[in-house]
Amino acid sequence: MKTLRVGMVGCGFMGKAHSNAWYKVNRFFEPGATAEMTAVCDQIESVAKEVAGKWGWKSYETDWQTLVKRDDIDIIDVATPNISHAEIAIGAAEAGKHVICEKPLAMNLAEAKSMTVAVQKAGVTNMVSYCYRRVPAVRLARRIVEEGRLGRIFHVRAQYLQDWIIDPEFPLIWRLKKEVAGSGAHGDLNAHIIDMARFITGDEISEVVGHAETFIKERPVGEMTGGLSAGGDAGGEKGEVTVDDAVIFLARFHGGAIGTFEATRFAQGRKNAIQIEINGEKGSLLFSFERMNELQFLSAEDPPHLQGFRNILVTEPGEHAYIDAWWPPGHIIGYEHTFINQANDFIVAITNGQVASPDFADSTRTQAVLDAVLESSDQRAWVSVPAA
Amino acid sequence: MKTLRVGMVGCGFMGKAHSNAWYKVNRFFEPGATAEMTAVCDQIESVAKEVAGKWGWKSYETDWQTLVKRDDIDIIDVATPNISHAEIAIGAAEAGKHVICEKPLAMNLAEAKSMTVAVQKAGVTNMVSYCYRRVPAVRLARRIVEEGRLGRIFHVRAQYLQDWIIDPEFPLIWRLKKEVAGSGAHGDLNAHIIDMARFITGDEISEVVGHAETFIKERPVGEMTGGLSAGGDAGGEKGEVTVDDAVIFLARFHGGAIGTFEATRFAQGRKNAIQIEINGEKGSLLFSFERMNELQFLSAEDPPHLQGFRNILVTEPGEHAYIDAWWPPGHIIGYEHTFINQANDFIVAITNGQVASPDFADSTRTQAVLDAVLESSDQRAWVSVPAA
Amino acid sequence: MKTLRVGMVGCGFMGKAHSNAWYKVNRFFEPGATAEMTAVCDQIESVAKEVAGKWGWKSYETDWQTLVKRDDIDIIDVATPNISHAEIAIGAAEAGKHVICEKPLAMNLAEAKSMTVAVQKAGVTNMVSYCYRRVPAVRLARRIVEEGRLGRIFHVRAQYLQDWIIDPEFPLIWRLKKEVAGSGAHGDLNAHIIDMARFITGDEISEVVGHAETFIKERPVGEMTGGLSAGGDAGGEKGEVTVDDAVIFLARFHGGAIGTFEATRFAQGRKNAIQIEINGEKGSLLFSFERMNELQFLSAEDPPHLQGFRNILVTEPGEHAYIDAWWPPGHIIGYEHTFINQANDFIVAITNGQVASPDFADSTRTQAVLDAVLESSDQRAWVSVPAA
Amino acid sequence: MKTLRVGMVGCGFMGKAHSNAWYKVNRFFEPGATAEMTAVCDQIESVAKEVAGKWGWKSYETDWQTLVKRDDIDIIDVATPNISHAEIAIGAAEAGKHVICEKPLAMNLAEAKSMTVAVQKAGVTNMVSYCYRRVPAVRLARRIVEEGRLGRIFHVRAQYLQDWIIDPEFPLIWRLKKEVAGSGAHGDLNAHIIDMARFITGDEISEVVGHAETFIKERPVGEMTGGLSAGGDAGGEKGEVTVDDAVIFLARFHGGAIGTFEATRFAQGRKNAIQIEINGEKGSLLFSFERMNELQFLSAEDPPHLQGFRNILVTEPGEHAYIDAWWPPGHIIGYEHTFINQANDFIVAITNGQVASPDFADSTRTQAVLDAVLESSDQRAWVSVPAA
Repeated sequence: MKTLRVGMVGCGFMGKAHSNAWYKVNRFFEPGATAEMTAVCDQIESVAKEVAGKWGWKSYETDWQTLVKRDDIDIIDVATPNISHAEIAIGAAEAGKHVICEKPLAMNLAEAKSMTVAVQKAGVTNMVSYCYRRVPAVRLARRIVEEGRLGRIFHVRAQYLQDWIIDPEFPLIWRLKKEVAGSGAHGDLNAHIIDMARFITGDEISEVVGHAETFIKERPVGEMTGGLSAGGDAGGEKGEVTVDDAVIFLARFHGGAIGTFEATRFAQGRKNAIQIEINGEKGSLLFSFERMNELQFLSAEDPPHLQGFRNILVTEPGEHAYIDAWWPPGHIIGYEHTFINQANDFIVAITNGQVASPDFADSTRTQAVLDAVLESSDQRAWVSVPAA
Repeated sequence: MKTLRVGMVGCGFMGKAHSNAWYKVNRFFEPGATAEMTAVCDQIESVAKEVAGKWGWKSYETDWQTLVKRDDIDIIDVATPNISHAEIAIGAAEAGKHVICEKPLAMNLAEAKSMTVAVQKAGVTNMVSYCYRRVPAVRLARRIVEEGRLGRIFHVRAQYLQDWIIDPEFPLIWRLKKEVAGSGAHGDLNAHIIDMARFITGDEISEVVGHAETFIKERPVGEMTGGLSAGGDAGGEKGEVTVDDAVIFLARFHGGAIGTFEATRFAQGRKNAIQIEINGEKGSLLFSFERMNELQFLSAEDPPHLQGFRNILVTEPGEHAYIDAWWPPGHIIGYEHTFINQANDFIVAITNGQVASPDFADSTRTQAVLDAVLESSDQRAWVSVPAA
Repeated sequence: MKTLRVGMVGCGFMGKAHSNAWYKVNRFFEPGATAEMTAVCDQIESVAKEVAGKWGWKSYETDWQTLVKRDDIDIIDVATPNISHAEIAIGAAEAGKHVICEKPLAMNLAEAKSMTVAVQKAGVTNMVSYCYRRVPAVRLARRIVEEGRLGRIFHVRAQYLQDWIIDPEFPLIWRLKKEVAGSGAHGDLNAHIIDMARFITGDEISEVVGHAETFIKERPVGEMTGGLSAGGDAGGEKGEVTVDDAVIFLARFHGGAIGTFEATRFAQGRKNAIQIEINGEKGSLLFSFERMNELQFLSAEDPPHLQGFRNILVTEPGEHAYIDAWWPPGHIIGYEHTFINQANDFIVAITNGQVASPDFADSTRTQAVLDAVLESSDQRAWVSVPAA
Repeated sequence: MKTLRVGMVGCGFMGKAHSNAWYKVNRFFEPGATAEMTAVCDQIESVAKEVAGKWGWKSYETDWQTLVKRDDIDIIDVATPNISHAEIAIGAAEAGKHVICEKPLAMNLAEAKSMTVAVQKAGVTNMVSYCYRRVPAVRLARRIVEEGRLGRIFHVRAQYLQDWIIDPEFPLIWRLKKEVAGSGAHGDLNAHIIDMARFITGDEISEVVGHAETFIKERPVGEMTGGLSAGGDAGGEKGEVTVDDAVIFLARFHGGAIGTFEATRFAQGRKNAIQIEINGEKGSLLFSFERMNELQFLSAEDPPHLQGFRNILVTEPGEHAYIDAWWPPGHIIGYEHTFINQANDFIVAITNGQVASPDFADSTRTQAVLDAVLESSDQRAWVSVPAA
């Protein structure tokens, strides 16, 4: 069995999710190659060392440039804050490594395009970690559209709602500074639902009008880490929040559908509430992440007296994507499984020389929408999404 | 248009529901005859007079025997406590009146049988007010079974849960005394779900084992009305509760299905929570009264990747029973509509000379199950349900 | 008891809902006066006569101008298509009648303002039939906001989804022609959710950007009634749809909240699916009309381990608005009850000399939002909502 | 850090779940010792070898007696069919190993008692794998009861519904033969809900009456493995199903509550549908496994106008059991996590010298209920549950 040697950069929340994915993928899947957890990288040595020890990464680095040049690495997994995605991914591509990069792909469209150029020039397999494409129910939604069960699509209605920074005393972490995060809820959350809408419908957004809101404009600065709060207390000092707390927008699709999108960190009681509904001529779909093992589907082709949204428990081996690898019907999977499914898909793409979904080129179109929405919010006007 | 002149006995909660039904039936339905609200009867003259005034009953009586003998009455509507169902219904039948009687039909099986004999001998149209048969979703459930969409039935799982007498200070009203009510939750609630199970499945219960429980054995006696509390305070005196608070039982059906049934007034937070699920070889059904405009149906004949409980909103004119008379799709109806639908069905039965559903004979079989369950609880043993 | 004599104009779907309301209001409520169904009016005599006979209207008219001048009328109930609201309501006010008018109040803001001037000048009690304000759960939502349980409001998320004209062969009825209906889904559906958002939050919309879409641009013209299809077949001829099929918009509120709104007749499987969610600093609310007896409420002030959206069954006498008049806990009410509750409230307002909710002045602000959204769609720009 | 060396017997579905648990436990938890996957055992060498390779078990055995005697093993994990639980667990205890055993503990009460004697005599830490005790929502349910939020308990209503053997052509596998499985749905499914009811309420069942049903009495025998079908075809031959397909029973608790229980493999569309509702004087709880990250809780101590079943998303670090180890709020976990949580708890119990929950003694009481139900079904009578 071929071995693919992985080097991962970034040891935060995403580093945990990705470590777990590499750790488990060959226990449940047979993707045609074995992932080896070769090296992990973090700027802070103690962190890199601890993560290596905990997860069994065979070595660690503190400099991503050293990592990407190592001969014993086949895949670079970029799990860092958004600001460093481009330089690491481009560096990895130039070093001939396959690259999987956390979402959003880039800080802006220009970066995304240069990243796409780099991986295409290098001829390496590349993928963006839009993990929700790996939810079996989302795959089923895509399949239902492909089977023609919705017909012409009229409406997309998507929200990604969280509630974790409502407290004005929540500190000014890196995710709330534009220079590191690029944007707030927008790049973090809207990125996912734009990607999901594109993936499920197979259509592209042509025009948007949006509004970005920052409800809490200043927050406490704690012990500083690179100018940002690490959560501690710095004597009551406050700093400016430079990203959005929420972004809402309207969208028109090339195929004629219209959509409403909303991302927020201020929806009390909504923890990780992705919800997307799609209404077509012949049917409708509804997915809610907090019940990620379910998909609601209504078919207008059912006998009229029996039509209704059916709640499909997407846990059937042999019927639903990825489930063969997991557990019997009704024995649900969770958030982390999306990353393991994704690791499998990435290895399969490398092994078979296929284009991964979504690759950098695909995700550049999501980036184009993200940028257009913020531009629209700044200009108070509709903005066309450029063909990316 | 023919007129059917109605005389109603009983002015409590059911009197209100029935008055409203007679008041509205010809506004929404065209059952072939017009119901005239001719006379209402209550032992207490002031009550009878007030109800007559409020609802437009043309006259009132205080003696049911006078009422049933009036020449200008075609239908007697029995909406009194259980203790008087038999004598009034039999009296009405002997006077040649059509009879509709509140459920449970009788205090016991012997009474039910004599009532059935009386109406059959008199040749009058007769019906028992199992109002939940008139929920469009329940009718749809029956239709789905008749269409063969469940196949062989394996399981019935029915509960009727309320919570209104959990407080030990709740007074000793007539519904808590065996001599007036016959039983407690059992005749009040189990009667309904036994009827629904029989109606939807088309099958009969052959054998039961049950347990009746009275959690609160004594309650305050207030101002007395015929020996029972009218809700006031009588200086801390307590009286014995002589009916069940809850009755649970297992059942076997002639067709091979097995069932669990439960009625209680001690399920905190469950207000009028009828729930019935039926599992068959080819599909399953789930109905919940508090969402009475919906029916859940799963078909194992759907494509495997698309199977799920579909939530049918049972509000489609032309597709779902009774809805033509009411409002557009999605504009839901409520509890009271079951009585109006029922009034329509009873008039139709009279006008067309059809057997009403359920008639006294049919409901005698429900009574046989009720009796068998209480006997089983007394004897701590399985009891066969006699063919009624 | 005082009597209020009602004259109703319009015998369509709304005429039925309003007739039923006047017919029942004094059976269930004691609003301080008795509604008398004095006269009904429709341009087509046979229709007026039939409706009078069915519902017990004591007389009928075919000319609204005759009706509003009759001395034996106290209240004019305007239940006609939108085009005639203004002239009838103004005529009624000038004749000194109290006026209740179907929504949307007017064809446009100018009309709404002139109607408001007319009723204020006449000093008559006036109300707009935004019936969903009379849902007990919506009243509870308002109460929860008033009790301060949400705190600062961040988000409003409202949709009103239907699916009844997806079929391209659905005929060109009056609701699809701008000259009679004013707009399509917008005035019909967005009007309701704008009113609900304003009512529940107590806040006003300051600025909007919207998009109106007509998915099916031509439809069959049938037998003509005043230039519009009555549903029959006219040899394949098609006419232009001149109203929107769907309108989506973003909104900013004076109080700082942001909102997304959507009205459509093209959401397959959504029958009368009003959904409104409100997220505040201390809690969230969610209401869905198809389950109109329920309200979901999350309180961030609950103990942290016990927080969750609680599904309140809004059927408790003594606790929830209107329920005292109806049925025991868990015995749900339906769509039609909103009109009966409303009739009660209007009679109470007249009897007590109170301002009705919403009155014409209040609903003029809803009209201002409706107009601003369509202007925004035309201009492809954000539009400020004028203080109405 | 101390190391605990694990030897696991059994390589079926449970072997997979347990391997995954040992593989992951120290990646997410810090239970005070490190689990080492020392040896796996299966009668079929090729299976043992493959599982060892896949999961990284350091060695394998084909004879459990060899395994339990190995000096380099601290824990024996019994994940075999029910028939061999007793001999392996007793052997392991006699060899001085800590023992964790799959549920149901034993084939019958006598076996369970002898197992309990063995572990107590040996003084080893012992636990039964009732994995659903490790669902955070189930732990929260227990906590709510302990906090006194339900008060006196009146009702338990529990079902465990599956649908995987409805097809009469489903083969005669070991789970359908009494001599290997002990019972059918009863030991497999009722065992879990009896354990959950006991765990959450803290009460014990005193008396039961039940009914065991086998709907399909003969099934195809395929290629034989120890006299049982391995799923293939053996020329149409059929063999007798000697276990139940479904078992329903009524229960009385020492504390006065009454319960209904149901286990079946014939509930079409119900995949792994554990549902348990508990109604108390002051509140109610509802848990459904297919939405295992949620718990519904109603408190009658909330303000009356705000009472409702709240749907608690049990994913809050710092608030809900086990979640600190996993993912952020709303990022749900799945079935497999119950085993990892359990592995943590077992290691903690060993390390701290605590009694595990449930230990063999505790689970012997579940076994006593299981036996009493089957005895009741045989005798067609109520049966007292002996104090185990």
